[in-house]
Parts: sequence; structure tokens; C-alpha cells
Amino acid sequence: MTKNTTKNPTRRHFMQAGMATSAALLSGTAIAQEITLEPSRGAGQTVMDMGYYGKRSEYVKDARMKGDRGTGLIGGSLTPLQHGQGMVTPSGLHFEVHHSGVPVIDPSEHKLLIHGMVEDEKIFTMEDLFRFPKESHFRFLECAGNGMGEWTSPRGQTVQQTHGLTSCSQWTGVSLKVLLNELGVNTDAKWLLAEGDDGARMTRSIPMWKALDDAMVVYAQNGEFLRAEQGFPLRLLVPGFEGNMNVKWLHRLEVSDKPWWTHHEVTEYADPRPDDKIRAYSFEMEARSVITSPSAGMKLNGPGFYEISGLGWSGSGTVTKVEVSTDNGNTWKKANLEAPVLPKCHTRFSLPWTWDGKETTIMSRTTDDTGYIQPTYEQMYKLQGPIGMMHNNAIQNWHIAQDGEITNVRS
Amino acid sequence: MTKNTTKNPTRRHFMQAGMATSAALLSGTAIAQEITLEPSRGAGQTVMDMGYYGKRSEYVKDARMKGDRGTGLIGGSLTPLQHGQGMVTPSGLHFEVHHSGVPVIDPSEHKLLIHGMVEDEKIFTMEDLFRFPKESHFRFLECAGNGMGEWTSPRGQTVQQTHGLTSCSQWTGVSLKVLLNELGVNTDAKWLLAEGDDGARMTRSIPMWKALDDAMVVYAQNGEFLRAEQGFPLRLLVPGFEGNMNVKWLHRLEVSDKPWWTHHEVTEYADPRPDDKIRAYSFEMEARSVITSPSAGMKLNGPGFYEISGLGWSGSGTVTKVEVSTDNGNTWKKANLEAPVLPKCHTRFSLPWTWDGKETTIMSRTTDDTGYIQPTYEQMYKLQGPIGMMHNNAIQNWHIAQDGEITNVRS
Repeated sequence: MTKNTTKNPTRRHFMQAGMATSAALLSGTAIAQEITLEPSRGAGQTVMDMGYYGKRSEYVKDARMKGDRGTGLIGGSLTPLQHGQGMVTPSGLHFEVHHSGVPVIDPSEHKLLIHGMVEDEKIFTMEDLFRFPKESHFRFLECAGNGMGEWTSPRGQTVQQTHGLTSCSQWTGVSLKVLLNELGVNTDAKWLLAEGDDGARMTRSIPMWKALDDAMVVYAQNGEFLRAEQGFPLRLLVPGFEGNMNVKWLHRLEVSDKPWWTHHEVTEYADPRPDDKIRAYSFEMEARSVITSPSAGMKLNGPGFYEISGLGWSGSGTVTKVEVSTDNGNTWKKANLEAPVLPKCHTRFSLPWTWDGKETTIMSRTTDDTGYIQPTYEQMYKLQGPIGMMHNNAIQNWHIAQDGEITNVRS
Repeated sequence: MTKNTTKNPTRRHFMQAGMATSAALLSGTAIAQEITLEPSRGAGQTVMDMGYYGKRSEYVKDARMKGDRGTGLIGGSLTPLQHGQGMVTPSGLHFEVHHSGVPVIDPSEHKLLIHGMVEDEKIFTMEDLFRFPKESHFRFLECAGNGMGEWTSPRGQTVQQTHGLTSCSQWTGVSLKVLLNELGVNTDAKWLLAEGDDGARMTRSIPMWKALDDAMVVYAQNGEFLRAEQGFPLRLLVPGFEGNMNVKWLHRLEVSDKPWWTHHEVTEYADPRPDDKIRAYSFEMEARSVITSPSAGMKLNGPGFYEISGLGWSGSGTVTKVEVSTDNGNTWKKANLEAPVLPKCHTRFSLPWTWDGKETTIMSRTTDDTGYIQPTYEQMYKLQGPIGMMHNNAIQNWHIAQDGEITNVRS
């Protein structure tokens, strides 16, 4: 059946462009033999077998992984970005970091106290919070320590290990501005302490301008209640700010005129500077991107067509551009950004690419709507020094060897 | 701490507006006693306890439910829309309908045959398909039979039973246009047969214009591979068309110059007309909406503030307006649409409402960007007659009694 074939001048030839496909072109007879056209394969499983809350196929094994010493994490797990699609992270694969384990909290007993410099101090039950107007927003969450093992030399063997502490969900809850407005905030108030009801009693100081901007208390993620490791039944969401500030298992907000300088904000979540001082309160996760496929640990199956795909994001606003280099940074091409492109949200980018089979290094860099451009390691060292821990947002290089093996390299 | 309180003229009083909150305003001392401020509650679970593919909290029980005789479904389950948030349906709660059970398919053995009126007939493995450029889109899927039990009289006791055969996900896969373009389609070809590799050998005729528009073969949903009941490892996606056409476990596409008039498309998925003829090939799911909260089976806890929340969608395009009536259809108010508002995608709407405690009926109606307005049952009967089964998109009424009980009514 080859007559009257469309002579479409735009007809693409991904397969002819060196794409290795497993089945060669076959005759109609061979095709019919290849796929069995029997009328039925017999009855399958029923919904009773599968469960009313569905599970994954037994053939799908993607999983979070525990952070290793290389990234210095204790009590956290990383998202398998190399297998991610689109911009939503499944809740079961969302990274999580905790500082004293994940508490099990009965939502019917959970309360949120808001007190301090407000007119009406108040305790809210979860049922109270459900009664307020709700909002849902797609937002990424990134641990400030994402890539902390990469500062001085490349260590992670996959993008899960180098960048797996960022994930993206649609979060639902109540605007913090609405709640604070309900209680009446003292005009001298400039800060808010958020405290979690976990073993670590995680406490972080939140600037009042952020609380009155786009901060929320959230109880749902991707259309269902929060997972325990994401703060069930209630967490703070301060979009674009380092993950640790999005306090989980939230049970107390105290309004004040000064910050608290709590343990976590002045020790673990603080940045060394080249002058041996410490930069505390570096809240925003600045613009960053990474190529998730092809990436370290994968192997290209010979020369030919490959789509380069990855994620860009910015805690300061919206990704306006992602550029990709396939020649070790000598030249850059603008990648396609997949809609919807939303503020403080993962943005999927892609670039068609035909690999010529020669050794090269590929990388990506993001620009956001503040004009900020993702830095190189050299540029980042100038700000923080080469001994940094948090806020590593440098350009990531993947080296492709002649045999197609991909590895994590510095340059 | 009540001095210098913000005298914000826009300060809202949800609580004072009759919102029943469980905790009265307390003094600072009582507040401090109410929330225990001990420094730690002890260590919690670790990631090893929780698993590298996370599970829900034991306190969360939302689940799909089997369709009952009232909706005539066999082998399907409905999404709990009454508990949904935002626009994403968790994959484990996505509705599903199957006609001969859910097959278990090894993805390494799965193949897609494209043959018939094309220049190059071809068999693709999953690995082949992964090599093509990929796209991700948020799209709703709705069974044509969503609400089929409601045609002649209200039967469902919750919105899960009346409207639970619609769900929304971000789907990832390959544009069908790209694949067909690769093979070269005969210019006389006008139809495509899609066949599933299930016990029912589900087959549906797809018009070529749709195949070359926004149709896709998809292998991922919400950032991970498809669930088995959603067609793992491969399904067709024909955005906005009735769910049954989005053939699951897709293994064959045959290109032809005429449709097939298969069993399912001329019997089960066909619409009776008032003149006793049958309207086949009514593909698009037209504009529809429903209030998900408050909805039947819930009870309002006395007069006061309630946010009305629901979903609107249209298989023909983008929702441009949702109107809500809280007085049995006498007056209508424009609801807020939550961003992002995307084509052929669930759109969350909301309207603040203060219930005066009197008996009333609430409802919603959607308008899409073609100008189509969701009909009443009376208007719908004129098109299809009162004995319809499929494509019920009429306005849904919820009756609120003086005691706050909410029930499913016709008018």
C-alpha cells in the first residue's frame, strides 16, 4: 500500500537519521505475523484485584534513593529525575529531608497556633482550615543542599544523586495572607517563626513580606492530602525559598518584630563566604537547570537522533530561557520550553539533537524573568568560595565518550 | 499584644461571618497551654520505614469506588471528586473502565504496529518510541457514560457516583502526527483503527484529522509510567474525545479510507436520538461542570461562610467562564477560574458564599471558547431524547435543606 503517499516536504526521518530501531521495515505479510491478531487474550484483572487506590505496574521500579555520604544527607531521599516526565513529580517519588524522622500525626488532633504580634491569637483545627478559601499552585521545592556533594568535584553518578533534591507538585491550601489578615497583624511585625511538630521541632524565621506575598499553609499535594514525609497533615509553603523553610508538620506560627536566628538557620542552612564570614538568610533558590536525559549513568546507543530533555526552575520567578550546549559550552542553542511555563515551578525544556558519535560535553543554563543567568562553577565560587554547601546552582556538565557512556564531569 | 494592629480596611472576617471554628478566642496563657511547646516529640519514621516509593498516610482513606447498577458500569471505578483538590487527579484515584479486565503486559515485549495506507509499515518497540521527541500535556479524560444513571432521574448519592468518570492528568508520549509523518500517510487515508491488546480487543475508529491534530501515543502519566488500568505500557490519547476512544494497551493502528463501525462504536458508545435512530461517532465530550464541594452526601455545619468549589471542562477547547447559582438558577455569578486554565483540561472554579441557613439549590454551568454553554436536562433531552445513555453533560443541581443536608435533585 504505497501509492498516493503524502509527499509532505516536512516529512521527518527520525528513524533514517540514524535512530536505531529494533524492527527493520517489513512486508505486510511479515507485519501480520509479527503482531498476533487473535480476537482476545482472555480476561484480565478486575478493579477488586487492583485495589481502589491504584498501585504501579510490577514492571516499574523507579524509586527514590537515600542520599549517600557524598551529598552529606542523613534522613532524606532523592527523586529519580532521570526517569521523570513533564513537570509533575509523583508524590511517592517527591524528595524529602527530615531532621528527626517523619512523625505520624492524627489529623483530627492536629492544631495550628498563630500568636504573638496579632490582634486575635487563634488556634485552628484542620477542619477550621478546610473552611477557608483554598488555592492550588504548581510549585517546585528544592532543598538548599541539592548538589552539596558537587562543590569541589563531581561525585554523583546519576542526575538523581547530583540534582535529586528538587521536585514539583500542585499544592493546595490557604493563603497565609488570608489567615494573618483574619487575625490582624501588628504593623511593627516583620518576622514570623514557623515551627514543625516533629522530633527536631524544626524552626525557621520567615520574613513578613513573604508571608503576605505568596506563602500558604498547605494540606494537599497533587490532588490528595499530603504524604506523611511531606508534612501531613499541614506544612508551610514559601514558594521559591529553600526547602527547609517550607516547615513540615506545621503547628505554630509566631509573629514578631525580629528574626529568631534558630539552630538550623544559622548553622546547617547558612552559606560560607570567601571572607570566612557566614551568609545567613539566603532564602531564594536561584535559577538552575539540568539535562535529565541523556544524563550520567546512561549510554547512547550509537550515533543518531536524540532528544535532549531537562528541567529549568527559578525561586525568583519564571524561567524565560534555557540554552543548551552540545559542544562543551562553545555554542548555545535555545531549547523549547513546554507549556505551561509557571512561576516558581519546574519547566520542562527540550532540544532535538543528532549525535555524530564523537566525544563531547553537553550542558544547560537557565535565565529567569529577573534577568539572572545560571552561573558556572567559577562564577559561583566568587560569591561563596569553593567550600560552599548550600545553594549550588552551577551549570552541570555531562561528558559523552565515543562509546556513548555518559559521566558527570566538571569541564 | 494588641497595640499597633493593622487597621487594614480590607481585613476579612471569615470567622466572624458565621464560620464555625472549634476553638474560641483564647488568652495568651490559654493558648500556650493548648499547644504543647516541648522541644521534641522524639524521633519519627525513617525513609527506610516509609519506602522508596512513598505511600499515603494511614489516616487518608479516599478511594475509587465500583460503579453500581445505577450507572450501569461493569468493570470500572469512579474518582472521588468530592475530595479532590486543584486540577490533577492522583494516578491511583484516576477513574478507569475496562471491557474485559486489565491485562498485565511486559513492556519489553510490547509492540505497536502501524500499517495499512502508509508508505512504510512499521513495528515499534517501547524503546523505539522512547527515542522520539516527547510531549507532555494536561488533559482530562471522561468516559462517555459519565452520569448515564442520571438521565431520567437523580440517582447518585455523591458527586463520585454522578460525575466520577472524569479525571485529569499530565500525559507524556509521542505526537501521533510525528509517527504517521515518519511512515508517510496515503493522501486518500481518512481513518485510523486503534486496537488494544486486552481481552476485549477494544477497537475504535479515529478520524485522520484528529490523528494529525493533537492525538498522541502516551506512556507516562503524572511524571511516571502509566498505571496498568490506564493502559500500561501504551495508550492512545485523543484529547477531548470520549474516554473509550483513548484506546488502552494500544498495539495496532491501521490506516484506512473509511471507518470500521466496530462493535463498541455502533452499540455501547452510540447515542439514541428522539427519532429512534442512533447517532454514532459523537466523539467530543462537550462542555460540562459540577460543584464538587459542597455536594450531595455532605452536610453544611450551620449558616455562614462556605467556599463553593468545582470543576469545569470542555472536550471542544478551553473553559472561558463558569457561572454558579445559589438560588435554584434564578441568578448566576461568575466564578473564579484558577490558573493555569488549559485546553481540554479540568479547570478548578470557586466562589465565596455565605449561606443564610435557608433551603436552596446550587448549580454551575460552563461556557467554552467555542461559545457553547452547558445545557439543562430539558435542553439536552431535545437533542438526544430522555432515554440517552452517553454524553450526559447537563447542569447538576444540589439541594441544601434547612438542616444543611445536601442531596442530588433534578430541580
